[in-house]
Amino acid sequence: MQITGTFIDEISHDIPHQNWGAEEWDTDFAHMKAMGIDTVILIRCGYQQFLTYPSNYLIKEYNCFAPPVDLVQLYLELADKYGMTFYFGTYDSGEYWKTGDMRHEIDVNLHVIEEVYDSYGHYKSFGGWYLSLELSRKTKGAVTSIAQLGAKCKAVSKGLPVLISPWIDGKKAVMASNNELTKDSGISLKEHEEEWDEIFEGIKGSVDVVAFQDGHVDYTDLEGYLKLNKKLADKHGLQSWTNSESFDRDMPIKFLPIKWEKLLLKLNAAKRAGCEKAITFEFSHFMSPQSAYKQAGHLYNRYMESPLARHRRGTE
Amino acid sequence: MQITGTFIDEISHDIPHQNWGAEEWDTDFAHMKAMGIDTVILIRCGYQQFLTYPSNYLIKEYNCFAPPVDLVQLYLELADKYGMTFYFGTYDSGEYWKTGDMRHEIDVNLHVIEEVYDSYGHYKSFGGWYLSLELSRKTKGAVTSIAQLGAKCKAVSKGLPVLISPWIDGKKAVMASNNELTKDSGISLKEHEEEWDEIFEGIKGSVDVVAFQDGHVDYTDLEGYLKLNKKLADKHGLQSWTNSESFDRDMPIKFLPIKWEKLLLKLNAAKRAGCEKAITFEFSHFMSPQSAYKQAGHLYNRYMESPLARHRRGTE
Amino acid sequence: MQITGTFIDEISHDIPHQNWGAEEWDTDFAHMKAMGIDTVILIRCGYQQFLTYPSNYLIKEYNCFAPPVDLVQLYLELADKYGMTFYFGTYDSGEYWKTGDMRHEIDVNLHVIEEVYDSYGHYKSFGGWYLSLELSRKTKGAVTSIAQLGAKCKAVSKGLPVLISPWIDGKKAVMASNNELTKDSGISLKEHEEEWDEIFEGIKGSVDVVAFQDGHVDYTDLEGYLKLNKKLADKHGLQSWTNSESFDRDMPIKFLPIKWEKLLLKLNAAKRAGCEKAITFEFSHFMSPQSAYKQAGHLYNRYMESPLARHRRGTE
Repeated sequence: MQITGTFIDEISHDIPHQNWGAEEWDTDFAHMKAMGIDTVILIRCGYQQFLTYPSNYLIKEYNCFAPPVDLVQLYLELADKYGMTFYFGTYDSGEYWKTGDMRHEIDVNLHVIEEVYDSYGHYKSFGGWYLSLELSRKTKGAVTSIAQLGAKCKAVSKGLPVLISPWIDGKKAVMASNNELTKDSGISLKEHEEEWDEIFEGIKGSVDVVAFQDGHVDYTDLEGYLKLNKKLADKHGLQSWTNSESFDRDMPIKFLPIKWEKLLLKLNAAKRAGCEKAITFEFSHFMSPQSAYKQAGHLYNRYMESPLARHRRGTE
Repeated sequence: MQITGTFIDEISHDIPHQNWGAEEWDTDFAHMKAMGIDTVILIRCGYQQFLTYPSNYLIKEYNCFAPPVDLVQLYLELADKYGMTFYFGTYDSGEYWKTGDMRHEIDVNLHVIEEVYDSYGHYKSFGGWYLSLELSRKTKGAVTSIAQLGAKCKAVSKGLPVLISPWIDGKKAVMASNNELTKDSGISLKEHEEEWDEIFEGIKGSVDVVAFQDGHVDYTDLEGYLKLNKKLADKHGLQSWTNSESFDRDMPIKFLPIKWEKLLLKLNAAKRAGCEKAITFEFSHFMSPQSAYKQAGHLYNRYMESPLARHRRGTE
Repeated sequence: MQITGTFIDEISHDIPHQNWGAEEWDTDFAHMKAMGIDTVILIRCGYQQFLTYPSNYLIKEYNCFAPPVDLVQLYLELADKYGMTFYFGTYDSGEYWKTGDMRHEIDVNLHVIEEVYDSYGHYKSFGGWYLSLELSRKTKGAVTSIAQLGAKCKAVSKGLPVLISPWIDGKKAVMASNNELTKDSGISLKEHEEEWDEIFEGIKGSVDVVAFQDGHVDYTDLEGYLKLNKKLADKHGLQSWTNSESFDRDMPIKFLPIKWEKLLLKLNAAKRAGCEKAITFEFSHFMSPQSAYKQAGHLYNRYMESPLARHRRGTE
């Protein structure tokens, strides 16, 4: 299963910034392209007061800072140049992470979605929306929020696809600020099925693609979850992608690139589960030859030597 | 607001060593010079048993280790070579961090100050003193200690300037060994004013420059503190510099280079507040093109492309 | 005291992987050789479900994953090529770390030892065994386990030497997942002597070499422990090596390369204590010029410039 999409983690919650300029981003898109990536997904357009684009609305209403560069424009131009599809990630005020209630984020994003499509919707590569509010089973107001925001995205953009990337409440679902790497108990497959069946029922029509994060469960348990997610997605008419994390959740440094063998295991499990597409969080820190983490460049090399990439080259 | 000074973080509390030799330090001073840095400040001359110079006094009386290289001599030679001013940072036995009582550090430093000026005072670049005991409002014995040590520095060196760099007890004032990035409550502007008015009253005459660390309060609150610090410094006849931290306090890896946008915001706030000079903690790990953290080199490039550096070049 | 051996940390507990391929490993062995390393020690052949070699036994009985590369074969070929001795590290199911009872690991390893010697014992460089179960004084079942596994190793391989590398229960003996860097109290020299005298009595005959980890006690206390360990080893007919850690235990990032001065201090203490050999944990992350941690390459340079390496060159 080849990786054909990646998040772009600007603005970051917990991954230190690389301080790249336009030149480094251009080089990075070229590396992505060489690896077979055709889809880039902005993880969020803003977090708290930091923004990726000079939003009049957010600067005025939310006291956000005017950014030194318009990254949304830069990414769209690069996606145009390299023939990729760009998904726009919505705003995250930070409130949701404190309260666990996603409804805080609805109103602001209804405005952002309009503003952004007005400003950037004309780019050829503007091809979808990513609802950046990461949900899991216990997220208050998730169904309402996702349904309402997804519907808005589709309404303003003549039906462009909407992507979400929830997490499984598995044993590795701990906060980055938490010292521990695991918690005692994760959700069972049965609970996961019941709860997500209900969630999917509530959001279908507003969302097109669900790409579960693949790093919160044990490597041996992953395939079971991927298959179940695929079954549920099929039932509700959603596409099932895998969001294959390229950072390592098993190490005390939070976070450095994942061991190649682990990524390979996860991608093989996704293939067996029938996922339609594999994306990763994320290329530029964890798989790029120019990453500040040198392990990322080696991961890129291992990937490029592997049958996954050989298959890609064979089909070009 | 241009950065014209930097700390040199040898011996380090919490930043891993780069293991540089004389050649790498020479290159680093050249990078600093190219960026407009005219002042280097040794963060401390020793911490617990590790020393930057072969102090007879500390080796004999405090059981310190004889260092493999005399870094104080090396830095002074390089400062001479590159036409910079060197500030000598006093000794930190480590006791103060355990007890919170700064008076432990007075006696040892009265000896160190004499020994050091005897050995190194003749260097052209030896231009000031840095009292390495980082204080905040609740530090026991701070006023006595700072006043006494500052007076001693001036007495032995015919009045060379004395610098301190306190921290604001803001919401990000947590220990590096603490997992959390913030605490629930920080000091209010009003409390800060009252307490520092009193502290400045007690240390004036012994101290010339106060450079508050700028990383412990929210980005939006910083300007208020900088302005208040400037007002208080003016009232007591002190210079007000900003110590603009070039590492990121908002990330779970403690610590990697700061995002360029954040540094820029802080420097702009310091300019508006009327700070006389901006220094940073610190160039060699967090802004240097040869740093082990590649993000640092990119931060350097962003800085050099910015109006801050353009202004510098224009005035040469 | 020159470093002439290193662990190879694949599979890792807590050090992020570098994602090297065969080419990088070949280069790394060349760097090791240039530094005077003649012994490489596989830290463990597998951890939980991840393996370094395609073990039929572990894949079938323990549900382990078939690895993408046979690292044991690769390392043996490189050790043959560079004229080094290879020590094979036993399997760690992970159970021991949860329960503190080492007896879980006996049965599985009795099988692994046989399987491995059958498959790889013919390599010229296959020269010893490393019992990967790190013990300290309170490890349940340690004496039984070590004695039984060591005897098995010797029986299958016609007496090849067996190495263990315990830790001293000093003040820095805290888990990597623990935020704190130290605990309040460590073992006293007297307790250490009594307890290890008893342990050595129980394992002698099954073990040839004891290489205590040197990073869990204060730099000033280390020499006392090294001397005591040497005395106890002599008494029981064991060799006493030092396992001189090349990562820094004093920093909040767990873990980056150690400061050169600290490594030098520890090696000098080991020399004074009369250790027969110094090995390190470990070269590839923390001392290699091609490490992802650039500080490691500088540590290599400092080491190569030092009298330790000059002595080596002088005796060639």
